[in-house]
Amino acid sequence: MAAIGATPRGGVRRLALSAEDAAARALFRRWCEEIGCTVRQDAAGNLFARREGRDPSRPPVLIGSHLDSQPTGGKFDGALGVLAGLEVLRTLAETGTETEAPIELVNWTDEEGARFGRAMIGSGIWAGQLDPAETEALTDAEGITLGAALNAAGARGAVPARAFAADSYFELHIEQGPILERAGKRIGIVTGAQAQIWLRATLRGQESHAGTTPPSARRDALAGAAEMVLLVERIMQDAGEAGRGTVGALAVAPGSPNVIPGEVRFSVEFRHPEEAQLAAQAERFRTEAAAIAARRGLALVLEERFRIPAQPFDPACVALVRQAAERLGLPAMEIVSGAGHDAVHVAAVVPTAMIFVPCREGLSHNEAESIDPSEAADGAAVLLEVVLARAGRVG
Amino acid sequence: MAAIGATPRGGVRRLALSAEDAAARALFRRWCEEIGCTVRQDAAGNLFARREGRDPSRPPVLIGSHLDSQPTGGKFDGALGVLAGLEVLRTLAETGTETEAPIELVNWTDEEGARFGRAMIGSGIWAGQLDPAETEALTDAEGITLGAALNAAGARGAVPARAFAADSYFELHIEQGPILERAGKRIGIVTGAQAQIWLRATLRGQESHAGTTPPSARRDALAGAAEMVLLVERIMQDAGEAGRGTVGALAVAPGSPNVIPGEVRFSVEFRHPEEAQLAAQAERFRTEAAAIAARRGLALVLEERFRIPAQPFDPACVALVRQAAERLGLPAMEIVSGAGHDAVHVAAVVPTAMIFVPCREGLSHNEAESIDPSEAADGAAVLLEVVLARAGRVG
Repeated sequence: MAAIGATPRGGVRRLALSAEDAAARALFRRWCEEIGCTVRQDAAGNLFARREGRDPSRPPVLIGSHLDSQPTGGKFDGALGVLAGLEVLRTLAETGTETEAPIELVNWTDEEGARFGRAMIGSGIWAGQLDPAETEALTDAEGITLGAALNAAGARGAVPARAFAADSYFELHIEQGPILERAGKRIGIVTGAQAQIWLRATLRGQESHAGTTPPSARRDALAGAAEMVLLVERIMQDAGEAGRGTVGALAVAPGSPNVIPGEVRFSVEFRHPEEAQLAAQAERFRTEAAAIAARRGLALVLEERFRIPAQPFDPACVALVRQAAERLGLPAMEIVSGAGHDAVHVAAVVPTAMIFVPCREGLSHNEAESIDPSEAADGAAVLLEVVLARAGRVG
Repeated sequence: MAAIGATPRGGVRRLALSAEDAAARALFRRWCEEIGCTVRQDAAGNLFARREGRDPSRPPVLIGSHLDSQPTGGKFDGALGVLAGLEVLRTLAETGTETEAPIELVNWTDEEGARFGRAMIGSGIWAGQLDPAETEALTDAEGITLGAALNAAGARGAVPARAFAADSYFELHIEQGPILERAGKRIGIVTGAQAQIWLRATLRGQESHAGTTPPSARRDALAGAAEMVLLVERIMQDAGEAGRGTVGALAVAPGSPNVIPGEVRFSVEFRHPEEAQLAAQAERFRTEAAAIAARRGLALVLEERFRIPAQPFDPACVALVRQAAERLGLPAMEIVSGAGHDAVHVAAVVPTAMIFVPCREGLSHNEAESIDPSEAADGAAVLLEVVLARAGRVG
């Protein structure tokens, strides 16, 4: 799978609904059909590979993740969950193991949000968290709508994109952070996902000549933005190791070395496991950023792009993950997901849990993203355990 | 002149050697020929309109500026100096005033540097400060070389582009800053141009996931760059009102809201009338920026793009400007040019001075650039005085 969209530095570039993503989807379909699964695609491009159960009327156990990547992404982010799910199905096929309930392996469309500016699209539409029409109208940098891209990639399935009755959903994913590795643990028992708030800031000053404008006459939008970047960092640090606060995108206009910046636009996001804490952080940012702007004679506009509530996972599903790790003798710890995942959307409508495995130095969204094969095997082993527990082994 | 390349918001777009610039050059030529001047063009496109003196063997007094503009520039930046020079020649023609020495009004090619990435090109080649072959190989955003653009605009003259013996050079220009307006002065007696140093900084940290990377594991290139932007501002402020320090361009990679920035590239420029002060500022920036990078685990590379020495103007020419303002009863003050000007190149080979007039709120490189007609008239009156003093009125 990593050969599709492989980059020279060992990562992948497999943007959602690109030619590379289409190739990955075709390979997924072929591999699933080779082991006797029936593959269907919904109107949002989500691919479901069904391994029938002894009782086809029982709601299926869902497992999976996503095959799309960041522009310079790693080989494991998303793909691990899909391919470990495939490995579970292959293991059942090779050992002739039958389950009571069907098992469906899913590849969700556009988890990364790198192309159309919104993440977890396929699972969000499926779980009723995103409006399909509004979402399909999102455009990429070339003005192509998500709807048009779905059609172009052959990803527009006939099945409606909406949640169906499912027993449970389990997603294996790399942690994408350094916590498990630092703690020397092999398995993360993910108890839920932290709350997020995303803001867009526009800061306007006065564009003027860098050589002729004395200090007292400057209204430098970039200097003001620099203070706000450090404010975000300070708010994060004040929350201790659970704190997350990031300015990831920042654009300067006019962006010429000898012109004092007149306008800076930047993103701000905070995340925290507790919503009250998160709200307090966002409020502190609004207050202190407004004071910075006022002191510098700048005009600040803050728009809230979105807010994701904290999403606790299903206690019974989480307990199954804990028990599987124990049974397999794998050192495990509870962890709150710092990243958004398809599982966060799915958890709104289906009992859900996630399994994390460590990745080197916590690196992700990066071509250097790396895990040890034994860690992938551990994660897949836990996934197999919980799937068998939930779907029921026949005989 | 402002009708050529006029923009909807009252400015001009007359990029060097564009169709608009060619039209401006043709109008300049016509206006000069209408009052009996002989116009010649050199190989760098510099246009010289000569009004003969009683003694043609005397080196001419040069006056002028440039007709090209920024992409969204103002009507007065450059054009004021050329058209005030034309007004001087017209006044001499209308009053039948003869001078001992010839007077040459010059329109220098591509002062702005907005198209080919280097400023003050025509005067730089003329004064031997720029290599003609290297300069002509510069390309614009469409890959057109400056040499090809010279030919396409009909601006390739037969006369070699090199300095000839000239008595003096006077350039009237808007201040492009707020100092005269704030001080309530009508005339700036420009004593020289400040020294400049331009750096390019590349700061590398660790690209990683905004949601999963705890504070202690972050190496955020943008947070480090933010400290350096504020360091530039502090160094500027410590130099008082003469200080100039600007980060005008800054680009973040990968530039995604949920990815901790792995790399930031930004420009740094400092300017100061005194070279020793400037060198100390640059040194302080290097030292303190290196400390910021080290503390944050970031890798900083600083490249010096160029350094422009301070250019004092000719004391005798500067004195003439002062005397003219006094004689005309115009409130005047000494000022150091914060911007680069053709006069800075010319001063290397010809006794030179500049005359500044205020502009509203110091705005320039901006469509809203504005001056009062009486200020244009004052500037032209001072220019006429110094030209007559230098060229010698006959009789």
